Amino acid sequence: MKWCRFQSGKTMAYGIIDGTTVTEVTGSPFESYSKTSNTSILSRVKLLVPVIPPTFYAAGVNYREHVTEMAHRRGVKPEFPPNADVGYRANNALVATDEPIVIPRDATDQVQYEGELVAVIGKRCKKVSEAEALDYVFGYTLGNDVSERTWQRGDRTFWRGKNTDTFKPMGPWIVTGLSPDDLRVTIRLNSKEMFTYAVKDAIFGVRQFISRMSQYLTLYPGDVLWMGTDGATENMKDGDVVEVEVPEIGVLRNPVMRER
Amino acid sequence: MKWCRFQSGKTMAYGIIDGTTVTEVTGSPFESYSKTSNTSILSRVKLLVPVIPPTFYAAGVNYREHVTEMAHRRGVKPEFPPNADVGYRANNALVATDEPIVIPRDATDQVQYEGELVAVIGKRCKKVSEAEALDYVFGYTLGNDVSERTWQRGDRTFWRGKNTDTFKPMGPWIVTGLSPDDLRVTIRLNSKEMFTYAVKDAIFGVRQFISRMSQYLTLYPGDVLWMGTDGATENMKDGDVVEVEVPEIGVLRNPVMRER
Repeated sequence: MKWCRFQSGKTMAYGIIDGTTVTEVTGSPFESYSKTSNTSILSRVKLLVPVIPPTFYAAGVNYREHVTEMAHRRGVKPEFPPNADVGYRANNALVATDEPIVIPRDATDQVQYEGELVAVIGKRCKKVSEAEALDYVFGYTLGNDVSERTWQRGDRTFWRGKNTDTFKPMGPWIVTGLSPDDLRVTIRLNSKEMFTYAVKDAIFGVRQFISRMSQYLTLYPGDVLWMGTDGATENMKDGDVVEVEVPEIGVLRNPVMRER
Repeated sequence: MKWCRFQSGKTMAYGIIDGTTVTEVTGSPFESYSKTSNTSILSRVKLLVPVIPPTFYAAGVNYREHVTEMAHRRGVKPEFPPNADVGYRANNALVATDEPIVIPRDATDQVQYEGELVAVIGKRCKKVSEAEALDYVFGYTLGNDVSERTWQRGDRTFWRGKNTDTFKPMGPWIVTGLSPDDLRVTIRLNSKEMFTYAVKDAIFGVRQFISRMSQYLTLYPGDVLWMGTDGATENMKDGDVVEVEVPEIGVLRNPVMRER
């Protein structure tokens, strides 16, 4: 099943996508909902960020080649995280597919993509085992963890390095019934494939993160967990178009512009 | 004006406190609202966390004596932050006044309070000056940034060190019309005064944080900014009661229990 949030005229609602049409629902996929008789052509609605999370979790450094490459560029030894210690991102930075990533005027040219899988929590969970963890996932979407590398390294926190407005594209929609182990993420810049990796090569998988987090935290319906990216990442500049694709989900596509 | 969120029977709503009574309102203080004819005795309602923030910001290290004392305990030189680089906390950890802080079974005895002022954003803001910044504050409440020090130091992020469920008491309510420069925070453990400090001794004040953050981020109504604590902090144990007070606001009081 494919779930989106969309705007059509003045209506903003959750919708179920079937082929090329969207059916508006009342309520939310996480609680109770019912289909209405309003349908729209998918290509004619504006897709919104598919969920506004109560808490926005991000695995951060979670793939070996990414850790190795980023350490190499800084001239330091790669250090792999010993535990699935989750980090945070912020809702102000979320934008939907097709919305622009806006590079601030005073950012350097080191504004880079990180294409990743996003797990969306479907049910409240606390103290679940790794074996049970995937039962609490509603579905999967895609994220682009856009990062200004000089701010990421130089500031005390990731506040603007990773959470500047528009730096967190998420979408295009949420797909249910997938197994994360089967998925492959591909990142393209201006239609050129930049990197492709198997989700299952993560240092810690979705099961491990959810189980460990839930020993201390309650996860709530709509919370999102961004799983981290693999490989080298490159700069994006004004006029570029960046895409993150998992064929079983779809394509998250965002134009890039620099603030003038 | 004193704004709260409260539960009375099955009703959960925003309310306006006047003396010893609460008047239920429909809507929210951040958009449009209207008073209903339902009033309750304040002492008979259950106070809820006064706002669930879209984004939960925390200044973190922001007072000289706190930075110095914490560095001293770790045997390192104190380092003061060069810029108002804001951090994040997580909504799962929020609890209201009177609700227990629950120390997990496997936490060490180094679970400590940090009593602080909380600014609640009232209006969407982006790129505001320091002179304008306070116009975007709706009001002030109190927070206790409970921290498990070994996890805070040992984990890659603050996920459980600061965001374990119940580690973020906030309340008791929001008071409008205050100037942060006039306020003093006092922290008590089992009725004994542990520390008191002037809010204006912060390394960076509310104006500076909001202005700097808003150069890159949009702040939204209901976002909260915890301003950091001053002084040494001490361990809390099962059976303790911790209080954070600003006389012009009120008292945030929480019992402490250890999970068995």
